[in-house]
Amino acid sequence: MGKNAEPTYVVGFDLGGTKMLAAVMDHQDTILGRAKRKTKAQEDPEVIYGRIAGTIDDALQEAGITKSQLLGIGIGSPGPLDSKKGVILETPNLNMHHFPLADRLKKDFGCPVVLENDVSTGTYGEFMFGAGKGYKHVLGVFPGTGIGGGLVLDGKLYTGATGAAGEVGHMILVPHGPMCGCGQQGCLEAVASRTAIAKDMIHLAASGDAPSVYDKAGTDLKKVTSGVILQAVDANEKKAKAAVTRAAEYVGLAVANCVNLLSPEIVIIGGGLVEKLGEFYLDTIERTMKQYALPFLVKNVKIVPAKLGDDAVFRGGAALVRQALETADKA
Amino acid sequence: MGKNAEPTYVVGFDLGGTKMLAAVMDHQDTILGRAKRKTKAQEDPEVIYGRIAGTIDDALQEAGITKSQLLGIGIGSPGPLDSKKGVILETPNLNMHHFPLADRLKKDFGCPVVLENDVSTGTYGEFMFGAGKGYKHVLGVFPGTGIGGGLVLDGKLYTGATGAAGEVGHMILVPHGPMCGCGQQGCLEAVASRTAIAKDMIHLAASGDAPSVYDKAGTDLKKVTSGVILQAVDANEKKAKAAVTRAAEYVGLAVANCVNLLSPEIVIIGGGLVEKLGEFYLDTIERTMKQYALPFLVKNVKIVPAKLGDDAVFRGGAALVRQALETADKA
Repeated sequence: MGKNAEPTYVVGFDLGGTKMLAAVMDHQDTILGRAKRKTKAQEDPEVIYGRIAGTIDDALQEAGITKSQLLGIGIGSPGPLDSKKGVILETPNLNMHHFPLADRLKKDFGCPVVLENDVSTGTYGEFMFGAGKGYKHVLGVFPGTGIGGGLVLDGKLYTGATGAAGEVGHMILVPHGPMCGCGQQGCLEAVASRTAIAKDMIHLAASGDAPSVYDKAGTDLKKVTSGVILQAVDANEKKAKAAVTRAAEYVGLAVANCVNLLSPEIVIIGGGLVEKLGEFYLDTIERTMKQYALPFLVKNVKIVPAKLGDDAVFRGGAALVRQALETADKA
Repeated sequence: MGKNAEPTYVVGFDLGGTKMLAAVMDHQDTILGRAKRKTKAQEDPEVIYGRIAGTIDDALQEAGITKSQLLGIGIGSPGPLDSKKGVILETPNLNMHHFPLADRLKKDFGCPVVLENDVSTGTYGEFMFGAGKGYKHVLGVFPGTGIGGGLVLDGKLYTGATGAAGEVGHMILVPHGPMCGCGQQGCLEAVASRTAIAKDMIHLAASGDAPSVYDKAGTDLKKVTSGVILQAVDANEKKAKAAVTRAAEYVGLAVANCVNLLSPEIVIIGGGLVEKLGEFYLDTIERTMKQYALPFLVKNVKIVPAKLGDDAVFRGGAALVRQALETADKA
């Protein structure tokens, strides 16, 4: 960490489509202050930027730290983005296009800023402080509205040639399968995200096979939350449970393919679905992974739930900016 | 390279199921001597070992180098193997089980020995000296009897937690699809290897749809070489051509999935099929890859044929042992 015993401070930031989180951490990774705001993602870019800067200010204030004491800011943001230039390129659900977020924050806070994909950042957070601590080769898979993935290989965040590696959710499992948000068909995301499950659920709700879903959500796709899905599983509504099982099996198949390609030590499953559905969901993924991956590759692979929840992305952001500062120090 | 101007010598070795190749290279990677023998893979392990040591001796002799001048030996061998311990574990088509090849050679030649998977080694050879030269993130895919894969990530050979990463051929593309040699169903290898194409070809030969195949191979699976497949394509036998196209499309789909996960800069296609079938095969892979991979990941990805042919594995082996020697020097 720092060159001497003086405490040093960084900010980790999670820029999400609905909310944003900032936390100030010291050199021992203790959280000294945190703040949260709604993103209001469809507002003017400058309005969103103002909220970002304001959230950081709030966290600094809570921590009792001034801007001048801040060593760096590490941000996880939905992609695609240009991490080298620190620019948000195009993000569905966020009205910031080709926005130079790193430069703007650097100017306003007077410190280096690191910008990375949020799922990569979250995976790195879990690797440094959560479920992946102590491992070297980590695959993170985060099924929710979509399905994101992140890679830590040989102990380092791996983002590939474009900075956007890790798109587990867009590996195609069912050629000519259901439409995906990305424009393709049959991506993992299209068959296994919460949205994919929700499509099955409202179908079942409409046909009378998932009364608990109908009760809470009618046949409105947007109302089928992870909680609604959990209720149908808990109520033992058979076809609903089968739909969840099927989705988890697809995640397991995709994970098996990743294991065959990358031979990780640990696979971390995070996001809303595993948080709500727990063991039932995770066990199905694990069983399917073990069924499909090569025996000598899968033998020692652990599959575990994420530990840090909402803290993963800002934790990872803080770790990434600390790492960048150390590398710069050495150079 | 070496610490001074003195020339230094290493041996690169390709241990294949049918033949073995050794080459002596100097510090400028010039080949000074090479030798080749049949592997006789079903003989006694000691007989095979004797042939390996003999082939190295032959190459040294041709180069005019003595054992005592040799700095190291780098071997590519079919897996699974334990690269840390230098032990061949279990290789179908090679009668060496839990054979400590590195230790044996170290004793007999008095120098460090590096043992890696042959496809990883071949990919590394292409990265250092062939089609992947100058790139940082390289995916190698080698469709032949089976389908192997290798990864160079961030400029280093990546072999994962088990040393066996890169199993592109066993990523499952068609759940419940055709049987694969690995015991699974629907692996890339099961739908796109030369063996998979050959299964279609003898079917077509039997039904009169591929007369050129029938002419050369009858309905005998083992007689359908890449050359026979090429002839059917060149004769424009429609269903035969469709079978090859289908296989190449599956390779393209698997490559797309790898691109989405790893965001490489370049994909190198090597092995017997691309050597024989050339552009027709490669173009189909590329078109399919571009169709299925995420646009912002595939934009700058080059897909190229391997350049080194049979030299790739021993070239890679030589480079890997040089690298190991340098790392040891620094430590």
